[in-house]
Parts: sequence; structure tokens; C-alpha cells
Amino acid sequence: MTSWTAHPSTRLHRFVAVQRITGFLLMIFSFTMVPPIVVDQLYEGTTTGPFLTALWITFVTGAVIWWPARKERAELKTRDGFLITVLFWAVLGIFGAIPLILTHAAWHSYTDAIFESVSGLTTTGATTVARGLDDLPHALNFYRAQLHWLGGMGIIVLAVAVLPMLGVGGMQLYRAETPGPMKNAKLTPRITETARVLWLVYVTLTAVCGLVYYALGMTAFDAVIHALSTLATGGFSSHDASIGFFQNPILEWAVMLFMLLGTINFATHFAVWRSRSVRSYWRDSEFRTSLSVILLFSALVALPLILTATFSDPLVSVRKSVFHVISYGTTTGFTTSDSSVWPSYAPLMLILAGFMVGCAGSTSGGVKMVRLMLFVKQAMREVKRLVHPSAQLPIKLEGKVVDDAVVYAVGGFFSVYIGFTIVLTFAMISTGLDPVVAFSAVSACINNMGPGLGPLAGSMAGVSEAGKWILIFTMLLGRLEIFTLLIVLNPGFWRRW
Amino acid sequence: MTSWTAHPSTRLHRFVAVQRITGFLLMIFSFTMVPPIVVDQLYEGTTTGPFLTALWITFVTGAVIWWPARKERAELKTRDGFLITVLFWAVLGIFGAIPLILTHAAWHSYTDAIFESVSGLTTTGATTVARGLDDLPHALNFYRAQLHWLGGMGIIVLAVAVLPMLGVGGMQLYRAETPGPMKNAKLTPRITETARVLWLVYVTLTAVCGLVYYALGMTAFDAVIHALSTLATGGFSSHDASIGFFQNPILEWAVMLFMLLGTINFATHFAVWRSRSVRSYWRDSEFRTSLSVILLFSALVALPLILTATFSDPLVSVRKSVFHVISYGTTTGFTTSDSSVWPSYAPLMLILAGFMVGCAGSTSGGVKMVRLMLFVKQAMREVKRLVHPSAQLPIKLEGKVVDDAVVYAVGGFFSVYIGFTIVLTFAMISTGLDPVVAFSAVSACINNMGPGLGPLAGSMAGVSEAGKWILIFTMLLGRLEIFTLLIVLNPGFWRRW
Ligand SMILES: [K+]
Ligand SMILES: [K+]
Repeated sequence: MTSWTAHPSTRLHRFVAVQRITGFLLMIFSFTMVPPIVVDQLYEGTTTGPFLTALWITFVTGAVIWWPARKERAELKTRDGFLITVLFWAVLGIFGAIPLILTHAAWHSYTDAIFESVSGLTTTGATTVARGLDDLPHALNFYRAQLHWLGGMGIIVLAVAVLPMLGVGGMQLYRAETPGPMKNAKLTPRITETARVLWLVYVTLTAVCGLVYYALGMTAFDAVIHALSTLATGGFSSHDASIGFFQNPILEWAVMLFMLLGTINFATHFAVWRSRSVRSYWRDSEFRTSLSVILLFSALVALPLILTATFSDPLVSVRKSVFHVISYGTTTGFTTSDSSVWPSYAPLMLILAGFMVGCAGSTSGGVKMVRLMLFVKQAMREVKRLVHPSAQLPIKLEGKVVDDAVVYAVGGFFSVYIGFTIVLTFAMISTGLDPVVAFSAVSACINNMGPGLGPLAGSMAGVSEAGKWILIFTMLLGRLEIFTLLIVLNPGFWRRW
Repeated sequence: MTSWTAHPSTRLHRFVAVQRITGFLLMIFSFTMVPPIVVDQLYEGTTTGPFLTALWITFVTGAVIWWPARKERAELKTRDGFLITVLFWAVLGIFGAIPLILTHAAWHSYTDAIFESVSGLTTTGATTVARGLDDLPHALNFYRAQLHWLGGMGIIVLAVAVLPMLGVGGMQLYRAETPGPMKNAKLTPRITETARVLWLVYVTLTAVCGLVYYALGMTAFDAVIHALSTLATGGFSSHDASIGFFQNPILEWAVMLFMLLGTINFATHFAVWRSRSVRSYWRDSEFRTSLSVILLFSALVALPLILTATFSDPLVSVRKSVFHVISYGTTTGFTTSDSSVWPSYAPLMLILAGFMVGCAGSTSGGVKMVRLMLFVKQAMREVKRLVHPSAQLPIKLEGKVVDDAVVYAVGGFFSVYIGFTIVLTFAMISTGLDPVVAFSAVSACINNMGPGLGPLAGSMAGVSEAGKWILIFTMLLGRLEIFTLLIVLNPGFWRRW
């Protein structure tokens, strides 16, 4: 309250500036209805009306929010980034649901439509469409993939610029590596500059991915939407059978490659781009560790498949294992078969991969491999300390000493992540799900991965209304790396905002 | 290697001193076969032979180990405590299995007998007897409860004196609170003094417990063995139906009370003893928090029981909930009905309680409530730090600032605990168990709690041979608070031992 009385205008001005940004964002977002309209005109021509209506609703709402604040030029502070980030996913998540509702195609309630929209924008890729993706109007499948891709644009900026700046869960580690004018303490110029550079990388990778998919036999339409979905590590597909639809092993290896590219830190992509040498990929110790874990998990998953002869050819078992470990690990969530019925620990090991493998600064969800590395190093340091109580034991990453504050922030992040996973799993069990299925649903959503187990392997349609809202919250919580959302929901944030 | 060359005699002398202690321990342990022999003479008179044989095998082996080392008086160092602690449970676990094997009563393999013996000494209370505890010779049921109680004696000293001294998982927190001559850096005198004081408390509480059980209607025999089992938070019973056998609600409340006394830090019991006032119980913030969590969990568990009318009377649902939350939370593992078939999240919430509720310095297993409190405080501090980046935010416990080294050691402990739970669950799934059942078995053993879910609700008889060995390792790992065992298994320990 003191700071409110002390600087009322500053606080109010900053709030109005956030209002201006939110309105402007909605106005821009309304134009993302144009590409689906174009797609609709090329194909069925049945959904142009709904998309046009959604465009106008979104644009007018945005304009009404923006207009009274349009002249506000107050400079935003770093911590305003928390609020803008939460608004980005929450507000766009709601408005993104409008065309899904209006088309009356597959979403029969606001809950289902908002679930699908939030699942798209958070790049989770869990769908509420029980069956029949192949029969949806092309415009809707395009729109879903586009939501992924737009969400991915937001995440890249969030992960490379916003989270390091805000220091969420130890991500201050990456402050120095953010491209753009980093010494600048102001929010807007830094983000604008960073976004420009990284989006160029993102657009280029998506374009290359689409061309490769097309060259390997996808239709132009499928190539476009699966490229959008891959680089966003999203997982929406235009086919119920996902990548399995194409029955094309070569294509599957290509999908694996681009999913891996989608999970690399975009600052590393930028370094490769600038140096014109792929050596930076190998120098990225987080990505190297991810690859090692993918190899280990692929071997562990392939083992029961081969032993029980799940597929007649052991080499098929290996390819299926590698594909699914990469798909779940990068939190993309594409499938080539129903891995939820695989024997022994295989299905749960895929879910475990979703927590661990994704890299920071990418579109992947999950705890992030770099946090896990710091966490393991911290645990090993505590063991060493018991044997050598007086030894100095700094934790290093790529040869550089990591500040203890980062290590401990990671510990805090990890505990909160585990805590929410447990509490949300209990909440989902109370909605009537079996424990393993409930855990799989929460893991699929908090890691922004997508597919669950058992009745939720194909879609989340079988979840109750209450359960869907819990999962909508879970997807946002995971995408916003928990703390970003917690802070905005915390009264202390508003008192000193 | 350098220290070996520098002080060869010191190292060798200390090793021989550990040998002397191990041999002596076995010789003493051999005499614990005497009470079951007395019990056998009072009842069936069928197992005196096997117990006598076990006595002689154990005594002679102990003597053979002790004799060549008997004159070694080398002073032990603090870190030798790791080795002695591991030897205590591993060696006694193996020798404790001898009478079980020799009686040919219910244990048909060395694996089953060692499982039962380790389960007794670690106070886990998981049994390999599928059915028929009520028909076992009295001497064997007495012996099983006695294993619990002896294990409890070891744990109290381990938890109050050894772990704080060694600093395992942040337990250096309790260094100042250990009764006895704490300033003394030598191992033996401090442990001897502490043990004397705490064992007196333990014996007294057990005696009172037995008298109360007898007064409330148990037979003298049942009162004795359930008192031994309660204060050790062990859980072995002489009845397949556990406490449910007695069909006595008043007795159930008494069992709840004594299970709670078994989970209080024995340093707090000692403070109550010395000050002749029970106010110290209430001043123990860890125990207060445990009680709050028990209340919360009881309400949450009672909810689905009442809603689905699992018991015809809602008050019965409440009593059953409180009993099982206390029993699982204190890691005793007594039951009054088959809680594994309770609806919704109730069974898993009981298992979750087993990780959390037990207090440090007691016979309870699990992560320990004080570690959880520090862990939550650390997580909340990281959230606060995001809002107020420059604030000084010390973590306090009972008004005193806790050293950050303790907080971070707790973080390391927690991560290793979760990590082992996950890896061991996958190992158990690979032995053929269902995921939830595998998780329940690992939780039951790593927390030294006892009962699992599904086919493992009553006993661990259905687990495969390999699975039983994994669980034996898991029980020891949990009981030795993970690090104690890890360090002794670590080559670095032996190089600088
Ligand atoms: K995904
Ligand atoms: K127990």
C-alpha cells in the first residue's frame, strides 16, 4: 500500500500500458484467422463464416481494450513480464477457442473448445476430439497446428528472454546467452530484438521441415501442418493415427530429427546460424545429455518390446522405441503406434522421459534437462560432502562454475514441480480416473506433452468436465514454468506491483 | 591411497576395531534367541530346538569374528559410524533369518526368511507369510515382534545420535539437541551415553503401551508383541487381520496414540522426561506439523469413504480414516480393514502419508516431516525471491535460523529419495508387477511402512524372487536414510576410510 500511495501514477500508467499491449495482442491475434479462411477457400469452403466471425469478435474486443490505453507509453519494468506472459496464454487461450465453438465441428462445449485452444497454444497437443481428425474440415486442422506454432513463437521468447530475465527456477543461468541488447534493463526493446532474431530461426527451421516432409511423401497440406506442429513440439496431427498414418519409416526418421531440432535451445540455434557451423550443437552440453538419455531410454524401452516380440521384427521395435522416446522426451507427442499398450514399464518410461529430456530455451515442456543436470550434480555434491565435509565443491556446467543461487532455485523449482504433479494427480483421481491414468494425464499436461495412458492414450475426450478444467490449469502451469503463474496468483505480487 | 601409506596402522587398527564390534554385536544378538525359547516353553514347545541352534550358530560366528580382534582398542572416528550402521542392519538381518529357516514354519526359502528378518529389523513390517499368522507358533510371532523392537533400539540411536553427527540429509540440524556429552568428537562414548538415556524412554513407553493394551482386552501375549511392534512403528502382528482382529474401537484409539508416540523425536520424549511436563511435545514444531497433516489427510481420506458409504456409519469411516492415516503416516502399517480396496484416491493418499508424516529422531521411516518442512520453506523462499530479488530471506525453524547448508542438504536428500523411488518402481514393474502395485511395494519398503496395494495389501508373498531382493535392498536403503548405504557402497569412502 505504501508504494501505491508513493507512486500512484507510475503503477497506474504501467497497468494501462499492459492493457494497451493486451488489446494490441488480441487485434494482431484476430488476423491469425485469415490463413484458416484461405485454407477453407481452397478446400471445403464450410468454415469461412465462423472464422470471419471469430476474427471480428477478437479484433473488436482487442480494439475496445486497446483504444483507451493507446497513448500510454509508460516504460514497463522487468517484473511486468510475469503479468504479460500469463495474459498472453490465458487471454489468447480463451479467444482462440471461438472459431472451434462456432464451427460446431467437434467441440460441443466451451470447456472442450478452450481445452483444445489452450492445448494448442501451450503446445501440449492433447485433443478433446475423440475420433475423426481425418474428417475435420482442413481449415480446422490447419488452425489447430497454427495455434501450436504461434504458441511456440511465444514460448521461444518466453524461454530465451523472459524467464532468464525474471530468474524463474534458476533460469537466470541463461541471462548472458540471450541474443540481443542484454545490458538493457528495460523490458520492451530487449524482447523485441530477441524475438526478431529467434523467430527468423524458427520460421526457417519450420520451412525446411515442411519441405523435407513434402519431399518424403506427405501432401502439401499435411507437410505444412505437421511442420508447424513439429517445430512447436506440439503434436496435433490431422490424422487419428498421427505419424503412424503415413506408414513411412524414412519419414519417421525425418520427424525424429526435426523433433530433436525443436527441443534444442534456440540460443544454440542462433549460435549455429551466426557461426555457420553446426559445432555449437555438440558444444551444448544440455543437448548432449538429452541425446544420451534418449539413447539410454530407447534401449530400456526396446528391451521389453523385443523380449515379448511386440513387433515381429526387432528392428521395428528399435525404431518404434527411438521414435516414441524422442517424441515423448521432446514433449511433442506424435505417435506411430499405441505405445500405451506396450509391455512392462515401457509406457511409464515414455512418460518419465517427458519430464526430463526437453532442453531449456526450446519449445519443449517438462522440467528441462539443464535443471535435472544441476539437480543431480547438487545431489552428488551432498554425497561427496558427507565423505569430505570440509571440501569446496563448486558445481560446473560447460566448465563454468554455476552460482549456488541458481542451483538452489532449481531445487525449489523441482520440488514445486513434483508437488504440483502429486496434488494434481490426486485431484484427477478424485474425478474418477484410475491412478496410473490420472498420473499420465497430469504428466501429459504439466509437461505439455500430450498423450496419456489407457482411455486417454488417443484423446482427453473421456475426462470429466471438472477434470478438463484441472488439466487446462495444469497445461498453463507447466507452460508458464509454474512460478510465473504462481507469482501472478500471489497477493504479494499485486501489493508491490 | 596417500592416506593409506601415511597412516597404515591407524586405518588397519580402526578396521579391526569395527571387526571387534561386529563380532561382539553378533554374540549379544545370539542371546535374543532366549526370550523366544522361553515363550516356546510356555506354549507349543516345538521351536526350542531351532532357536537354540540359531543361538549357537550366531554366538560361535560372533566369537570367531570377535576373538582375533578382542584386544583392539583403536579409537573410532565419526565416519566409521557409516560402516558400523550398515553392518548392524545387514549382518543382523542375515543372522536373524536363521531361526525362521530352521523352524520350517512359513518361510520356505532363504530369500523369504531374510526378507522377513530385514523387514523386522528395519521395522518395515512387510511379511512374506501369505496367510496363517494366527496359526504360527507363539515363539515365532514373538520373535518377529522382538526383531522390530531391537531394530527400533538401533534406529533411535541411529536417528538421534549417528545421523546428526554424520550430517546425513541435513540431520546436522539436530546436533545440539542430542542428549549426552555432545561436545565430544569421539564416536563410542557419545553413542553409549545417548543410547542409555533413550533406551530407558523406549523401554518405559513400550511397557506402558503393553499394559494399556492388556487393560483394553488383549491377551498378555498379544499385548506384549503388539506393544513391541507399536513403539518400533513396525507393524508385524500375530493376526492376519492385524488390529482389525480385536474388533475393539477403544483399543484402536489406544493404538493410534502409541503409534503417534512412536513417531515423536526421542529427543523430545527425553525433554518431556527430564522436565516432567508434556509441554515439550507441543513445542516440537515438527510433531505439530505432523499432527496437522494427519488431520488434513484424515479428512481427505474420510471424504470418499463417506460419499461412497464404504462403511454404513460415517463415524466408522472417520475412525478408519484416522487410524489408517496415523498407521501409514507413522509408517507402522497396522490395519483395521483392507484399505487397499477403498475408493478413489484413498489408498494412494495413505501411501503418500508414509513418505511425509514420520518425525526425525523416531523409529518412523520416510522422508521425515522436518525435511519436508525445510523443503517447502525453501520452495516458498524461491517464489518470494522472484518478487523481491534482493531481499534477505533466512529459513527458520522454531524461531531459529537454519543454516543454508542444512536446507540444501535436505534438497539433495529429497531428490535422491525421489530418484530411488522412481528407479526402484521401474525395476519392480520389470519383475512383472502392475505399475501402481510396484509403486506401492517400493513405497512400503523405502518408507519402512509395510503394506502394499492390490495383491500386496496383505503380504509380499506374491512378489518374485528377484523382486524380493530388490525390496530387501529398498528396506535397507530407506532405513539407512539412503546416504549411509550409498557412502559405504562408494569406492571413494574406502579410499579415504
Ligand atoms: K506436445
Ligand atoms: K512399519
